[in-house]
Amino acid sequence: MAANPTAAMLVIGDEILSGRTRDSNMHHLAGRLTEHGIDLVEARVIGDRRQTIIDTVNALRTQYDHVFTSGGIGPTHDDITAEAVAAAFGLPIDVRADARALLEAHYKRTGTELNAARLRMARIPEGARLIDNPVSTAPGFSLGNVHVMAGVPSVFEAMVEGLLPGLVGGAPVLSRTLRVMRGEGEVADILGALAGEYADLSFGSYPFQRDGRYGTNLVIRGSDAARLDEALSRLESAVAEDAA
Amino acid sequence: MAANPTAAMLVIGDEILSGRTRDSNMHHLAGRLTEHGIDLVEARVIGDRRQTIIDTVNALRTQYDHVFTSGGIGPTHDDITAEAVAAAFGLPIDVRADARALLEAHYKRTGTELNAARLRMARIPEGARLIDNPVSTAPGFSLGNVHVMAGVPSVFEAMVEGLLPGLVGGAPVLSRTLRVMRGEGEVADILGALAGEYADLSFGSYPFQRDGRYGTNLVIRGSDAARLDEALSRLESAVAEDAA
Repeated sequence: MAANPTAAMLVIGDEILSGRTRDSNMHHLAGRLTEHGIDLVEARVIGDRRQTIIDTVNALRTQYDHVFTSGGIGPTHDDITAEAVAAAFGLPIDVRADARALLEAHYKRTGTELNAARLRMARIPEGARLIDNPVSTAPGFSLGNVHVMAGVPSVFEAMVEGLLPGLVGGAPVLSRTLRVMRGEGEVADILGALAGEYADLSFGSYPFQRDGRYGTNLVIRGSDAARLDEALSRLESAVAEDAA
Repeated sequence: MAANPTAAMLVIGDEILSGRTRDSNMHHLAGRLTEHGIDLVEARVIGDRRQTIIDTVNALRTQYDHVFTSGGIGPTHDDITAEAVAAAFGLPIDVRADARALLEAHYKRTGTELNAARLRMARIPEGARLIDNPVSTAPGFSLGNVHVMAGVPSVFEAMVEGLLPGLVGGAPVLSRTLRVMRGEGEVADILGALAGEYADLSFGSYPFQRDGRYGTNLVIRGSDAARLDEALSRLESAVAEDAA
C-alpha cells in the first residue's frame, strides 16, 4: 500500500496566540483531510510576522506534500500572508487582473466601493492558481504545494471544499471506537498487547469523566476495514473477559 | 521596558491531527499566558512519535524561555511524552518515589489497584520538579524550561494554575476593542494610519457577520493603559469622522 500524501497546516494570526480568538480551522481541516486520505502530520500557529511566515512556509513546503495556511489575507495592514508566501517562493506579487475582476463584480453587485484597502485582496503571486471563495468573493490561492486560505471559518471551510477535489488523496483513515466505562489504567494492558499484535493499525485511548465516573474511548485506526473489524472484535472479547 | 518572557506550546497527540479530538488547551494557555505577561510566540501540534517529540522539544526549548506541552502522559502504550522529553535532555527516567507515593495514596483512597499501567504515570525524569494535579493526582513535571502537562482539559487547566505563579511574568498585554458595524475594508486605511503612528502598540482587525451585516472588531494591544486609551480615543474619532 502506497503511503498517503502528507500535509502540514499553518495557522497565521496574533489573535490566536494572544488567546483572543479560538482557532477552529485546524480541527475542521484535520477531519476533512482524514476523510480525503491526506495525512496531517503537524500543525503550527505563528504570528503576523513577515520573516516568520517566510521561514515557516519554506520549512514546511519542502518537508510535506501539501501546506495549508489560514489567516492574513484580508484588506488591512496586518494581512501580510500573501506577500510573505510570494517572498518565500522568490516570486513577485501584485494586483492580478483575474482577481481584480472578481472583486469588481462583487462590489458592483453589492454597491460598495472597491477602495485601495479592498484591492489588496486582489494581490496574487505570479503563477498562483486562485481558490474560489463562494462566501465573500476575495480568493485564496495555491502556489506550488502551498494553499493559502482565509482565517474566517465560514470562508476557510468553503475554500477547503473547493480545493480538496483537486488534490490526490490516498486511502481514507477509518476508525472503530469501543467505549468502556472503565479507567484508562484498567484497559491499558489489553490495548498495549493488541497494539503489539496488529502493527498495521494504530491504537489510542481517550479518557473521559461523566457523572463522576471514569470511562475511556478505545480507538483503532487504519485503512483496511476488515482488519479493523477483526481487531475491534478481539478488543471487545478481551475487555469482556477481563471484566468477568 | 524589558521584553516579556517568550513561550511556545507543544500539543502532542494523533487524535488532534486526525480530527477526532478538538484541542482546547492551546486557547486556554494562550489566554492565561497573556494575562501573566508571557508572550506565546508559537504553538505546534505533533503526533505521538518519539523522535518527533525529541526533535521538537529540543528545537523549541533552545529558542524560547518556556515550552509548555500537553498530552501523552497517561497510562497507555501510546503515552510516550515523558520518556521522549527525558531523552531530549539526555536524562534517565524511571518510577520515582515521590510520584509513586502520590499515586499509592490516591488509589488506596479510591480502592483501586495501582497496576503496572498506572505506575507508568509515576515515571519522572531525573531532576524534574513535579507539577501538582489536583484533579486526578498523576503529576506533570518541569524539566529545565519544559513544562509537561496532561492532555485532558480539566487536568491541563488545573496544572497551569499550579505552575504559573512560579513563573516570572512580564507586563500583561492589555487590549482595547472598538466594535464597528462596517466591513474591514472600510476601516482598513484608518487602522493602518494609526498603526504607523503608534508603533509601540499593535493593531488588529477581526471581521464578523451578524444578521447578514458585516462588522469588524478593531483591537489595540499594548502594555501601557494610558497609551491604549489615547489610541482608542483617536480611533473612535477617526471612525466617527469617516462615517459622517
